[in-house]
Amino acid sequence: MRLAVIPGDGIGREVVAQGLKVLTAVLPSEVKLETEEYDLGARRWHATGETLPEAELEALKGHDAILLGAIGDPSVPSGVLERGLLLKLRFAFDHYVNLRPSKLLPNTATPLAGRPDIDFVVVREGTEGPYVGNGGSLRTGTPAEVATEVSLNTAYGVERVVRDAYERAQARPRKKLTLVHKNNVLVHAGHLWKNIFDRVGREYPEVTTDYLHVDAATIFFVTQPERFDVIVTDNLFGDILTDLAAAVTGGIGLAASGNINPSGAFPSMFEPVHGSAPDIAGTGKADPTATVLSVALLLRHLGHEAEAARVETAVAEDLAARDGSPRTTDEIGDALALRVTG
Amino acid sequence: MRLAVIPGDGIGREVVAQGLKVLTAVLPSEVKLETEEYDLGARRWHATGETLPEAELEALKGHDAILLGAIGDPSVPSGVLERGLLLKLRFAFDHYVNLRPSKLLPNTATPLAGRPDIDFVVVREGTEGPYVGNGGSLRTGTPAEVATEVSLNTAYGVERVVRDAYERAQARPRKKLTLVHKNNVLVHAGHLWKNIFDRVGREYPEVTTDYLHVDAATIFFVTQPERFDVIVTDNLFGDILTDLAAAVTGGIGLAASGNINPSGAFPSMFEPVHGSAPDIAGTGKADPTATVLSVALLLRHLGHEAEAARVETAVAEDLAARDGSPRTTDEIGDALALRVTG
Ligand SMILES: CC(C)[C@H](C(=O)O)[C@@H](O)C(=O)O
Ligand SMILES: CC(C)[C@H](C(=O)O)[C@@H](O)C(=O)O
Repeated sequence: MRLAVIPGDGIGREVVAQGLKVLTAVLPSEVKLETEEYDLGARRWHATGETLPEAELEALKGHDAILLGAIGDPSVPSGVLERGLLLKLRFAFDHYVNLRPSKLLPNTATPLAGRPDIDFVVVREGTEGPYVGNGGSLRTGTPAEVATEVSLNTAYGVERVVRDAYERAQARPRKKLTLVHKNNVLVHAGHLWKNIFDRVGREYPEVTTDYLHVDAATIFFVTQPERFDVIVTDNLFGDILTDLAAAVTGGIGLAASGNINPSGAFPSMFEPVHGSAPDIAGTGKADPTATVLSVALLLRHLGHEAEAARVETAVAEDLAARDGSPRTTDEIGDALALRVTG
Repeated sequence: MRLAVIPGDGIGREVVAQGLKVLTAVLPSEVKLETEEYDLGARRWHATGETLPEAELEALKGHDAILLGAIGDPSVPSGVLERGLLLKLRFAFDHYVNLRPSKLLPNTATPLAGRPDIDFVVVREGTEGPYVGNGGSLRTGTPAEVATEVSLNTAYGVERVVRDAYERAQARPRKKLTLVHKNNVLVHAGHLWKNIFDRVGREYPEVTTDYLHVDAATIFFVTQPERFDVIVTDNLFGDILTDLAAAVTGGIGLAASGNINPSGAFPSMFEPVHGSAPDIAGTGKADPTATVLSVALLLRHLGHEAEAARVETAVAEDLAARDGSPRTTDEIGDALALRVTG
């Protein structure tokens, strides 16, 4: 297993170290793990002005997968690293399935009363929509400025992610798929999504389907999250909904994600949903669980289903055993590594 | 007071009737209330194919304000009434301040554990952003389809709504204003918003400011809603955030809104955030409270501050007195009308 590791900024390095610790512990001895670290992120940008040089983008292609910690620092102007590094990778490697599972695990803090039974997966489109970087600004900084952002949506891009979502829904016990969009206002993109959703759905007669406007979906996320099984949605709605989903299922300290290229043409990338949290970097307070759960997604993507399941079980058991006494990043990593081997 | 009334669809007529009942009860006898009803919505569209004819748009201009119930029905294709009627009114009458207060009132059902102290106002931009209807679709319905949605943002449009939000923040005890956008991805629109937000802020040194990405904002809405005082944001983010805000403060049965043209050049429009709820239309189950609270916003906008406050107090008292026994739409309206006169 040839793994590229991008620790990134802030707590990124600390949590990635735990992810690798657990990965090493769970991998069967016949699988040789080779990791190569890439120095990308705020430090690199400050030092060299580079976000993701072509040579490194090329080199990354030689790996089976990428594990990323966190990117970003307040000292870097907003958008530079996001668009120059994180989104560049997602677009260059055609990560069209941005997979974000949400499950309310035992003993975790949800802000919701009554601890509803939450277990759904958001399939967020990762290569189109308002994220394409298509837009501009005219007369910038003047009282006559006009700024645009163009959401680009193609049948090609929508159909492949919708199909992926149907496959995932079909493979789950409840077999339910909800499309989230805003097709009463964003009618062109919305109708494209809805038409393809309906058409592809005819190939999956066992899957129950549903449509929600994004505003209504946020309501159900807090009042009736148990109604969701698989959700498919566009890049921006997916960004918003998955942070909210993380918040109601124990916080972004637990939320994992995979930026997946299902064809395997390019390496997929796995990362916790949380940011670089520079305020707690180096204090040992960062919870590496989201990274460890991202490692489980990585394992599953590379065909190591049994190991993926063991990592997830270890996390569930570790959470169930938490008694509130504080543990360091490293201690949590150790505990999880122990459980996956036990 | 020359009021245009658009009952609209589903429960719209029922809740508007209660709003008018309370308005009539609270208005001082020297204020003469003249109402004129406009038959617009799904029924009209089915009957004539019209959503908002020019003549009626003209006629509506002659009123001091508009009270709207709810628009929409599953029998009408998605987008027709939204864009042809509701958004047409917001754009034609330049309702650039879409005002949506969120307060967790006594005895209301919040899905949040611990009933946090929620009392904030969202100032949603109402005439720009992804709502402008600028976009299209090429090769519609084919595998080669491309669909776009363009978010248009102008310094003119952003500055006036940001200024309005600063004024509102300045007038509140906590004097805090949070800008919500996604300026790390939507960099052109995001930087326009952020630059204007910072520049106008220098004129309001007493107001504390804050910036949040929209995804992070949804997290705080459920984990720390008490941190918000006034929020200013774009049309689409505002749509999403205010539904979530309604969900955590007792549900959309209580959420009021004003589509305000602060210059007074055109009538402002007041409406509950909820939809037409065709499933409960005619059953007497609709809660008219959101409409009554919208009437309070209407009163305040027209300068009747004391009456607005009386309506809001009546609602708070009515909620506090609720014992869970079901009341009809009409009974709630009667109770509120009684309280405002009492
Ligand atoms: C950092 C940012 C560009 C990114 C996104 O918007 O996709 C993040 O919020 C995420 O969800 O992975
Ligand atoms: C019905 C729809 C067009 C509208 C909107 O998106 O603005 C509604 O959701 C609202 O929030 O008033």
